[in-house]
Amino acid sequence: MTAQNTTGVQNVHPSPPEFVRQQLNSVLSDIKIEAIKTGMLFDADNTLAVAAGLKAHFGGVNSPKMPPLVCDPVCVSTSGHTLLQADAVKVMISDLFPITTLVTPNRQEAELILSQSGKQMEINSLEDMISGAMKLRGLGPAAVLLKGGHITLSMEEVRRVCDSSADIDVVRDGLLEENMEILQVAETDPSARHVVVDVLHQDGATTVFVRPRVDSTSTHGTGCTLSAAIACALAKGHNIKEATRLGTTYTHTGIEMAFPVGTGFGPLNHMHSIILRSIPLPTPSIPHPFTRLLIQATSGIWKSYVEHDFVKQLGRGTLPRECFIHFIKQDYHYLKYYGRAYALLGAKSPSFSAIGASAQTMLNVVTEVKTHASFCAQWGVSHKELDTTLESPATTAYGAFIIDTGLQGDRSKLVMALAACLLGYGEVGLWLRKEASKPNSWVKWEGNPYVKWMEDYSGEHYQNAVRAGLEAIEAEAVADPPSRARFNEWVKIWGRCTSLEKGFWDMAMGLL
Amino acid sequence: MTAQNTTGVQNVHPSPPEFVRQQLNSVLSDIKIEAIKTGMLFDADNTLAVAAGLKAHFGGVNSPKMPPLVCDPVCVSTSGHTLLQADAVKVMISDLFPITTLVTPNRQEAELILSQSGKQMEINSLEDMISGAMKLRGLGPAAVLLKGGHITLSMEEVRRVCDSSADIDVVRDGLLEENMEILQVAETDPSARHVVVDVLHQDGATTVFVRPRVDSTSTHGTGCTLSAAIACALAKGHNIKEATRLGTTYTHTGIEMAFPVGTGFGPLNHMHSIILRSIPLPTPSIPHPFTRLLIQATSGIWKSYVEHDFVKQLGRGTLPRECFIHFIKQDYHYLKYYGRAYALLGAKSPSFSAIGASAQTMLNVVTEVKTHASFCAQWGVSHKELDTTLESPATTAYGAFIIDTGLQGDRSKLVMALAACLLGYGEVGLWLRKEASKPNSWVKWEGNPYVKWMEDYSGEHYQNAVRAGLEAIEAEAVADPPSRARFNEWVKIWGRCTSLEKGFWDMAMGLL
Repeated sequence: MTAQNTTGVQNVHPSPPEFVRQQLNSVLSDIKIEAIKTGMLFDADNTLAVAAGLKAHFGGVNSPKMPPLVCDPVCVSTSGHTLLQADAVKVMISDLFPITTLVTPNRQEAELILSQSGKQMEINSLEDMISGAMKLRGLGPAAVLLKGGHITLSMEEVRRVCDSSADIDVVRDGLLEENMEILQVAETDPSARHVVVDVLHQDGATTVFVRPRVDSTSTHGTGCTLSAAIACALAKGHNIKEATRLGTTYTHTGIEMAFPVGTGFGPLNHMHSIILRSIPLPTPSIPHPFTRLLIQATSGIWKSYVEHDFVKQLGRGTLPRECFIHFIKQDYHYLKYYGRAYALLGAKSPSFSAIGASAQTMLNVVTEVKTHASFCAQWGVSHKELDTTLESPATTAYGAFIIDTGLQGDRSKLVMALAACLLGYGEVGLWLRKEASKPNSWVKWEGNPYVKWMEDYSGEHYQNAVRAGLEAIEAEAVADPPSRARFNEWVKIWGRCTSLEKGFWDMAMGLL
Repeated sequence: MTAQNTTGVQNVHPSPPEFVRQQLNSVLSDIKIEAIKTGMLFDADNTLAVAAGLKAHFGGVNSPKMPPLVCDPVCVSTSGHTLLQADAVKVMISDLFPITTLVTPNRQEAELILSQSGKQMEINSLEDMISGAMKLRGLGPAAVLLKGGHITLSMEEVRRVCDSSADIDVVRDGLLEENMEILQVAETDPSARHVVVDVLHQDGATTVFVRPRVDSTSTHGTGCTLSAAIACALAKGHNIKEATRLGTTYTHTGIEMAFPVGTGFGPLNHMHSIILRSIPLPTPSIPHPFTRLLIQATSGIWKSYVEHDFVKQLGRGTLPRECFIHFIKQDYHYLKYYGRAYALLGAKSPSFSAIGASAQTMLNVVTEVKTHASFCAQWGVSHKELDTTLESPATTAYGAFIIDTGLQGDRSKLVMALAACLLGYGEVGLWLRKEASKPNSWVKWEGNPYVKWMEDYSGEHYQNAVRAGLEAIEAEAVADPPSRARFNEWVKIWGRCTSLEKGFWDMAMGLL
């Protein structure tokens, strides 16, 4: 354990080796291990405890059960505190290296390890790094990543060294490749840049990872971050070279994206590669999180729509006949927009099943219009009268808004625009039926002149469509999780349509 | 420190209090603290070390400098291991509670703390929880959250207790609210559900958080997660009630979204509310990550486009005259699609500045067509001939694909479809100029019949448009980070257009 901050390590309290052994046993006896990373081991006893514990559990050196092990040989803190005692270095070499997949020393650590094993050398150049990595590999680990963060090189030097050997592979990261002149002009000329390299040596092959040098004080824990990131990539099944590439990219982006913390060398930003979900994933207890959010975000206007006075008077059976007739005439016009909107959705569809679903809804609308016409006939409204009725501004506003949304945006935006109608009428139907089922209800079912309307929207056929719509909306959010900006647009469209639905009933009540 | 796994705590190794004090000093002396959370403190000395260290640094009880402190009174592990010794409970009450913003005991911990302070009681019901929370509040902390995860209640019971007091506010989370009949029908009837409650008491006001009971074995570390999540919300400036709501929601979703780990009670999923970025954020060393990804994802086809034989022969000056003429005639037709595509982009625009930018490009296209016509005249192609030239299938394929993409998708998709042309011609211009600048270059500039074309695309005017386009593309990805699915669509469109650009030059070379 350390007492440390961004200015350095102030103190170290070593764990008793017996306790480290118990911690190791607790984890190994219970949890399947996909990769292992060691960090600061401090003393010989602890190093031995870890090495022995791992060998005992996984079956010793060369056991096929041994998971990838990344050994970060944390030796000395930047502030000069010894984090690995001299005799512990020897134990690391003798006991841990033989089961190590990858050891990740920086220059100072590499020099220390080599000197402890009688291979003293100074590492100042790329050639030194390559030869140092080879010597370290000779000490037992399957691979060595010698980190060159403190050695600044020019691109020319890297080329000179690497082009001279067929065994050296160069991986450029963060540097521009060919056919990227437009980016070179927009950015700084990378050939003038200083670069840093990490040298990976394994199986006689050497890979040199090259990237632009970045000056930053947010480098506290860089080595720990890198070794942990590589271990994660190995756990996911990547090979050592690809895991190293992923790990170094992750780490260097973390340095560049860091926030300042503390007065010394602050930590990296480990969160740079993630964004917050704007819609929670469905869970067993909340299977429709997106629809919930939509309704909650617009609860006032949603209530004013689904519990509109038009609905209440309709439920009571007291709705003036002319209001209902005005409503069904305007609904006729609205249905034309609705059918066209599904045609537009069809034109925006990526698959045959989506095209088919749009076509089916269009056909349903056409069928519904026939039912609608005969329903109107019962209320004394002729087909001709339907066609000659002028469209109310509220109808145009709602219908044209849906079409415009479909023109402006993608499929998902149009789906949002169509949802308020589908779900709202479903809600109204269920609400009226639920209220009607209460003792002494204000809702009159038997003998209500509007009973067919209530039956239709609370009935199984329409409610099945509502459920299908719900699932489609939720699936949209899971398949293509929206950014916060996109989510806000969706909520805005949903809220607008909810409001336009309310306006539609205002229009019917006011005979506007 | 603990040796533990999903089956329980196997052993505890207490830190020396002096070392805890040093760790505290390291952090407090260097880093600005926005909120504090305490967990397992184990013994009286450590508890005192923490309380004394905080008071010394922040100026004692009631100091305005004291940040919010959430005290999770971890007392006993699920497996029965003592994690807070009896005398430590007394110190927690006497020394830590007076500087505590919120203490978060579960039933067992609440009973233990109350019994240690002579207020022994059993907590079995919601009434017990409310009275227990009040009694705990009397011990000094500014607020108490008594967690009821182990007490199952019915919604009726919650209503009975809470409706009887005006001081009790009920926050429902994960339960359906009014006007959500459609979700109640699609889900289970929540009134039949068992619920669990957490009781928050502060300043004489009580809030009861109600949520559906979820059965799960992924509950290891639930209390630690909750107290840490609440501390984070307090650090962000939320008040205690809202922080508690956010923390409980986060924690319960973590339980529901957990992956199985270990043979006992596994950990929560702490990652449920995040998704991976599909495009890294721009950094100082990589200011155009999105364009890089696009080019790298399509490097083969991109190279075959920007280093097309048409370009090479044009650079050498050896391109057959009839190929160039065929090209500029078809380019005339292509520009019509291009202008229309920007009109469509204008129709999809959310702001006046976006509408204006589209209009400006449309005007540029119209101007360019005039220049284009006079350029054609120099090559002996009359305006009439331009208009009567049949459109090649390669031209139609490319032009119509852009329009179709604009119809199918949103603004960003259309921007992607338009990028390959803008950036590719910029790349070609820069490449030719760069090659021409080399000694003994294969590119002939002086006396090349196509020098004007090369000047145009490598010139400042066009390159400024390229840079503006680059920035717009990168800004799109930052403002509305795409999901992996959406990013894949973008890459597909970019790759398709790159391929159609290559096809355009194939067409010119083959006089197709």
